Amino acid sequence: MTSLSDVSLPSRVAPDGEAIGLDELGLAARNHGMPLELMRHDVTPLGAHYLLTHYDVPYADPRTWRLDVDGRVNRPLSLSLADLRSRPEVSRTVTMECAGNGRARLLPRPVSQPWLHEAVGTMTWTGTSLASLLAEAGLADDAVDVVFTGADHGVERGVEQDYARSLTVADAMNEDVLLVWGCNGVDLPPQHGFPLRLLVPGWYGMASVKWLRRIEVVAQTFDGPQMLAYRLRQDPLEEGIPLTRILPRALVVPPGFPDFLSRRRVLRPGPQVLEGRAWSGWAPVTRVDVTIDDGQSWRPAELGPDVDRWAWRRWTMPWVVDEPGQYVVQARATDASGRTQSTDPLWNRGGFANSAPQRVEVTVLAEG
Amino acid sequence: MTSLSDVSLPSRVAPDGEAIGLDELGLAARNHGMPLELMRHDVTPLGAHYLLTHYDVPYADPRTWRLDVDGRVNRPLSLSLADLRSRPEVSRTVTMECAGNGRARLLPRPVSQPWLHEAVGTMTWTGTSLASLLAEAGLADDAVDVVFTGADHGVERGVEQDYARSLTVADAMNEDVLLVWGCNGVDLPPQHGFPLRLLVPGWYGMASVKWLRRIEVVAQTFDGPQMLAYRLRQDPLEEGIPLTRILPRALVVPPGFPDFLSRRRVLRPGPQVLEGRAWSGWAPVTRVDVTIDDGQSWRPAELGPDVDRWAWRRWTMPWVVDEPGQYVVQARATDASGRTQSTDPLWNRGGFANSAPQRVEVTVLAEG
Repeated sequence: MTSLSDVSLPSRVAPDGEAIGLDELGLAARNHGMPLELMRHDVTPLGAHYLLTHYDVPYADPRTWRLDVDGRVNRPLSLSLADLRSRPEVSRTVTMECAGNGRARLLPRPVSQPWLHEAVGTMTWTGTSLASLLAEAGLADDAVDVVFTGADHGVERGVEQDYARSLTVADAMNEDVLLVWGCNGVDLPPQHGFPLRLLVPGWYGMASVKWLRRIEVVAQTFDGPQMLAYRLRQDPLEEGIPLTRILPRALVVPPGFPDFLSRRRVLRPGPQVLEGRAWSGWAPVTRVDVTIDDGQSWRPAELGPDVDRWAWRRWTMPWVVDEPGQYVVQARATDASGRTQSTDPLWNRGGFANSAPQRVEVTVLAEG
Repeated sequence: MTSLSDVSLPSRVAPDGEAIGLDELGLAARNHGMPLELMRHDVTPLGAHYLLTHYDVPYADPRTWRLDVDGRVNRPLSLSLADLRSRPEVSRTVTMECAGNGRARLLPRPVSQPWLHEAVGTMTWTGTSLASLLAEAGLADDAVDVVFTGADHGVERGVEQDYARSLTVADAMNEDVLLVWGCNGVDLPPQHGFPLRLLVPGWYGMASVKWLRRIEVVAQTFDGPQMLAYRLRQDPLEEGIPLTRILPRALVVPPGFPDFLSRRRVLRPGPQVLEGRAWSGWAPVTRVDVTIDDGQSWRPAELGPDVDRWAWRRWTMPWVVDEPGQYVVQARATDASGRTQSTDPLWNRGGFANSAPQRVEVTVLAEG
């Protein structure tokens, strides 16, 4: 047992009834979601944003670190952090969500990072335009894809790799896409990509390559392992549909107070304001519907201001709680493209893009 | 089902063979450990320090927040954040560990936050002396315990509560104990106790009450639910031994690179330097022993400088990897009080203080 294929197994789906295993728990202990009560903040406090590290957080020395821009470009570049920081600076507040958010709720469950609903966060990112850097390097006429390679190194499904993802030239030249060195007013922490990461607003997080070291422009479609992994498939052998933009989702700030272990919510009768956040990577959120009876009836929530094009939007709904008993609160988002959050899990082998609504179970106490 | 006892069940131990449940996974998704490769940093980057929130992270308005100091004192105080910040400022680098670290490795497994080994972190905390504040308030002659109450509110094992813990007057007057408003050079993030928390260096994390609102000096021993919960017990009805200071522990920075899912480590033959950190809340670490053969033989590691009295200490050990195959790396700490990290799990109903060594499984590849 001394070859990579012994160490790293193919992806699999847990048979019905197989509970969370030690491998999945190990991932959950080091990666983390955002405690949902922190959605009260427009911008997620540093350290509370979700985090998924495929391999290890690399250790980078900012004095020697460089970003290489090469391949099918007219003027290859090699830039220090100071070179990058001297470029025009842009800050954008962006909601990022892991493509695997909701995975652990699927039946049968794809075995991977077992997210429930918390793999999301919104930070104010600071950096510079990717398009202007690429324009400076000059794309060759035969340029097709732009490949972004990070410093994190590992093995996944038997393939040793540096984490790498590509964008088409058209997507890479989108003015929203940034190379960022800061978040929430400080330098990127190591676990969020220090010293530099890509930020692709509106896309699931796998596109925003952390610990960026190289940008290579290539003349053919890039089919690295991470491009093949992040696809919607029913069968492991089918080509599948690549994941790109984030589907609409609304989440609820759990009302009342929790039980430590079950996280079940407890309320006393009286006036409440339900609140939460909603987002979509396809178009602005135009509507959020809320139920307190587990989907039997839905009412539209009030939407807060639109803070930034790719940032989540706050929603609120008053709720006069008068009857003790059991309630199940859910929320659903709709965006301006006409997409509405599906109430049925979109099962797929990778466990991606499961936007089935969160079910918040609430007990209203009989006591006053 | 509309009373607290329906919502919140007594503690329990999972029968043999019961895998991690959704309740435990829910806790693991919102609380998080420190990715162990980040032990390369003397000070844990902001956001990577372990986090355990019993209930919800409260939302505090720093303009209206106050700390009340009352009970058996001669001069009750009510202090704003500005009042506190005008006091003499102290910064200390302190390693904090959750009392439940290692819980999920116990058999049978106590059902609670399912930590493996990652519930640790070291930050540089900034605040002011608790003892000098208590001296200013003036302890009454009959003062016995000092009770610290946070703003987080929930129900646990059927008891609704604000999180509260006490120290004896002697422990509270220890000059090491601080009231802190900052970590790693910034204001405390909400999830680490904004705007103010207690910091009890050398003790397990449950003592360092977050979101501190009130310090009450009382004339009898405080037996609130958190004082009863954090005890070493074999049987739920016995009185048990209160948890206080952190037992010695050493952890290994996992060498080589990981498989995504299993986190098994992969190395190629060649010279390596194993490294890690070791700490104890009882006395300075004086020795770390390391094995690469799963405990058949141990060799002493070299210790790095002692950075701060209650901060972890770096250790290193060269390893010339020449034979392909399977290795299991472990480390054990010994401190100046003569305590040595136990290799046998200390089973107890709460799953506390399990300092059984981490086992890092490494595959050395046959290829060069």
